[in-house]
Amino acid sequence: MSANVQDAIVLFGDSITQGGWETGMNGFGANLSHVYARKMDVINRGLSGYNTEWAIPVFEQYFAKREHQMYLPTVRLLVIWFGANDACLIPSPQHVPPAKFESNIKHFVDLVQSPRSEYYSRDTRIILVTPPPVNTHARRADLEGRSPPLQLDRDFETTRRYAEIVKDVALEKKVGIVDIWTRIWDAAGRDEGALNKYLGDGLHLNGAGYELVYDGLLETIRKSFPELHPDNVEMIFPHWTSVVTQ
Amino acid sequence: MSANVQDAIVLFGDSITQGGWETGMNGFGANLSHVYARKMDVINRGLSGYNTEWAIPVFEQYFAKREHQMYLPTVRLLVIWFGANDACLIPSPQHVPPAKFESNIKHFVDLVQSPRSEYYSRDTRIILVTPPPVNTHARRADLEGRSPPLQLDRDFETTRRYAEIVKDVALEKKVGIVDIWTRIWDAAGRDEGALNKYLGDGLHLNGAGYELVYDGLLETIRKSFPELHPDNVEMIFPHWTSVVTQ
Repeated sequence: MSANVQDAIVLFGDSITQGGWETGMNGFGANLSHVYARKMDVINRGLSGYNTEWAIPVFEQYFAKREHQMYLPTVRLLVIWFGANDACLIPSPQHVPPAKFESNIKHFVDLVQSPRSEYYSRDTRIILVTPPPVNTHARRADLEGRSPPLQLDRDFETTRRYAEIVKDVALEKKVGIVDIWTRIWDAAGRDEGALNKYLGDGLHLNGAGYELVYDGLLETIRKSFPELHPDNVEMIFPHWTSVVTQ
Repeated sequence: MSANVQDAIVLFGDSITQGGWETGMNGFGANLSHVYARKMDVINRGLSGYNTEWAIPVFEQYFAKREHQMYLPTVRLLVIWFGANDACLIPSPQHVPPAKFESNIKHFVDLVQSPRSEYYSRDTRIILVTPPPVNTHARRADLEGRSPPLQLDRDFETTRRYAEIVKDVALEKKVGIVDIWTRIWDAAGRDEGALNKYLGDGLHLNGAGYELVYDGLLETIRKSFPELHPDNVEMIFPHWTSVVTQ
């Protein structure tokens, strides 16, 4: 049984989070796991295909209620990264209307931060991440190339709107933010065609895209929660050369 | 707080385990994390530089005692991988004599498997991994190139002996085994000079070496504990298309 010795960072999101450890992908999850080794466990709670609506009942099982928290690893940092599926176009079953998406993201924050919540955790900091931009052309080509061909299910402007909502919620709730939508858009020279440098299929990140996420997270951690930056977290058990001299 | 919803695989060892998520390394830890996503958490309990002697008090804190196990994630699989530091040559402070190394590895197994142990866990399967072969020439060159130059601290024949000990313990204790020593030695055509295909510095694995470890672990899991193979473990929460149709 794994005892409660290391605090945790939980990455909670959709397929872009779930894929963060994929082989050869330079995934942000794997890279965070490496720099936090012996300091904090980095836990994958990515749910491919899920929108915020479906993620709520999962959250209520993934996160411990107050009465169990004393036995379990403390989540020092919760990264919440949804929107890529919520922003699906009607009539996709993944579509969540913007107002509902906004209230769901707020709900996740409140579940952790409201003293009235069953899941209230004073020790958990929150970072919201915006969905990445969609390359409508690449996404359409990908879907039309499938057998049978599928209709376009996401587009650039709609996902941009969902990214704006996440930024607004972060401001209102005073939590951390990584605006990966803008980081990738700027890195691509604000040219939708150039997004393929960061998005293999127009939707999911490739290694270059994940690198921007990793860099963005470490910048936000340093700025908003410096005590959680890997440079500032001590190893739980000492370096071996200290063991020798004990 | 991270609730107790996913069982765990714990990788317990030295720097070769700790480095298993390193960026661009094709690390076995990152790759296991990916294939077990939404099924089991893969936990890094690698301790760079540690030998079995120093790892015992750490183990006693990392693993939950019986009375706390009910609250914590079940470790379904414990991978124990030491020997690379125990096999250091006298007078290295990392050196652990062969008989002591053998009794320490047995002690780890007994801590989990003996019904008399405080850490007894009926649900935990164990796989031992042998230390990889040392390329004496590459290791010597690496150490002599440092400032100040260091003396050779490990050699091929000594580490081979420690690998044999791990195999013998696995047979005696009837636990799983990945004999990475022999896998790498065979893959290198039993030519010490050719070991550099798998060991960057004569001691630590590179991506090709980690691939052999990953393949070896999945083979042993399939053979010895098929119920724990990723193909046979269900996702905790359903695929999104099942959520839609609920």
